[in-house]
Amino acid sequence: MWQGQWIDLTHEFSTRAIYWPTAKAFEHTEVFKGVTDKGFFYASYDFAASEHGGTHLDAPIHFSEGQLGAGDIPLQQLIGPGVRIEVMIGAQRNHQISVEEITRWEQEHGQIPDSSIVLFDTGSAALWPDKERYMGTAERGEAAVAKLAFPGIHPDAALFLIQQRNVKAVGIDTPSLDYGGSVYFHTHQILFQQNIPGFENVADLSALPPTGFGVIALPMKIKHGSGAPLRIIALIPPTD
Amino acid sequence: MWQGQWIDLTHEFSTRAIYWPTAKAFEHTEVFKGVTDKGFFYASYDFAASEHGGTHLDAPIHFSEGQLGAGDIPLQQLIGPGVRIEVMIGAQRNHQISVEEITRWEQEHGQIPDSSIVLFDTGSAALWPDKERYMGTAERGEAAVAKLAFPGIHPDAALFLIQQRNVKAVGIDTPSLDYGGSVYFHTHQILFQQNIPGFENVADLSALPPTGFGVIALPMKIKHGSGAPLRIIALIPPTD
Ligand SMILES: [Zn+2]
Ligand SMILES: [Zn+2]
Repeated sequence: MWQGQWIDLTHEFSTRAIYWPTAKAFEHTEVFKGVTDKGFFYASYDFAASEHGGTHLDAPIHFSEGQLGAGDIPLQQLIGPGVRIEVMIGAQRNHQISVEEITRWEQEHGQIPDSSIVLFDTGSAALWPDKERYMGTAERGEAAVAKLAFPGIHPDAALFLIQQRNVKAVGIDTPSLDYGGSVYFHTHQILFQQNIPGFENVADLSALPPTGFGVIALPMKIKHGSGAPLRIIALIPPTD
Repeated sequence: MWQGQWIDLTHEFSTRAIYWPTAKAFEHTEVFKGVTDKGFFYASYDFAASEHGGTHLDAPIHFSEGQLGAGDIPLQQLIGPGVRIEVMIGAQRNHQISVEEITRWEQEHGQIPDSSIVLFDTGSAALWPDKERYMGTAERGEAAVAKLAFPGIHPDAALFLIQQRNVKAVGIDTPSLDYGGSVYFHTHQILFQQNIPGFENVADLSALPPTGFGVIALPMKIKHGSGAPLRIIALIPPTD
């Protein structure tokens, strides 16, 4: 069952994991670690965080009232054929991935198959966990938001993926589906109005081929969650 | 890719999710929900919990010093052919699943294949989220631990699964690999000394056949985690 190579596309959760400047960062609290009075070793921790940080799911309810929460997204929408679209980002980190960049990719690799999970590889995972380089600022708090700079998906490209390519889900290796300079988060709004979930802070995608692999993206099953920690993996089938 | 039927074996995380009487239960805290001053809908939450509650992974480091943490377990050990062993629990909830019960199951369904993920179905998922019926007590705190009562895996059965059947991982639809009355958690110790992870509070397994399905169990990737929330799913291939 499941011949091929599994690849983990997930950053580790630790106190170094990157969160939005205004979001509660990951905390890991030791409850006990050592030998108990009964003579055996035991270790246990509590954890706490915003739903939005590290490699995570954005559920449609995050920006679209009445839509699916993290625990409600059907497995069929989180599992499927994957597409990796590599995007060349220059020095201008606040890039918005355009429809033209997608169709140019298609000229080389063929049209995005129906019901795909599309993953955008901007090369940003290589900058993790350096907050300054990865998202433009290591500062925390409301004032830091204006300093955010990283690539995202242009709203027109989101619309194209839904209407013209019928995608199941969209992921990116940056902190947000919208680019760092976004104020209205139109890409989030467009995707979530159609109940298309998003995957953010996806880890290094460079081991994946452009097409011909499968994606399994399983969020923590948080009831009514606006998002959730996500474990996202890919399977590259054997070449025979 | 992946023809067949996906089945979710995961309980939802909410304030009703069941935790050990001494463990920090799941908290879900609203950060914002409503229309922002920019005119769009937005919802976001923080969450907090023990690593051990709800459907979750027990990492080997939980009871065995120096062994694998939640973020370190290779994907190959979390993914594989599944086996569902149904166990009939009578009124005596504090049952320990024996070697004999496993070999009796094998007489009917064949030997557990090498490198399987073995899931024990005690029917307990049907009692979730009624704490009193599911684990013997709804009380919280240290004094409640003595009142715990639920089925677990006998240490001899754990040893048999490792030494005679070379399993990848073991799961159960109760709060713990060890039975409710356990004091020394020998089954945890035996499995984790061999770096075999455990899955606890697995949800309803009754839709699975005894063999012939695949399991994918993806924990939140917590660095040095003693455990983690787990999303566990199964694929039943099409019968053709
Ligand atoms: Zn998010
Ligand atoms: Zn546990």
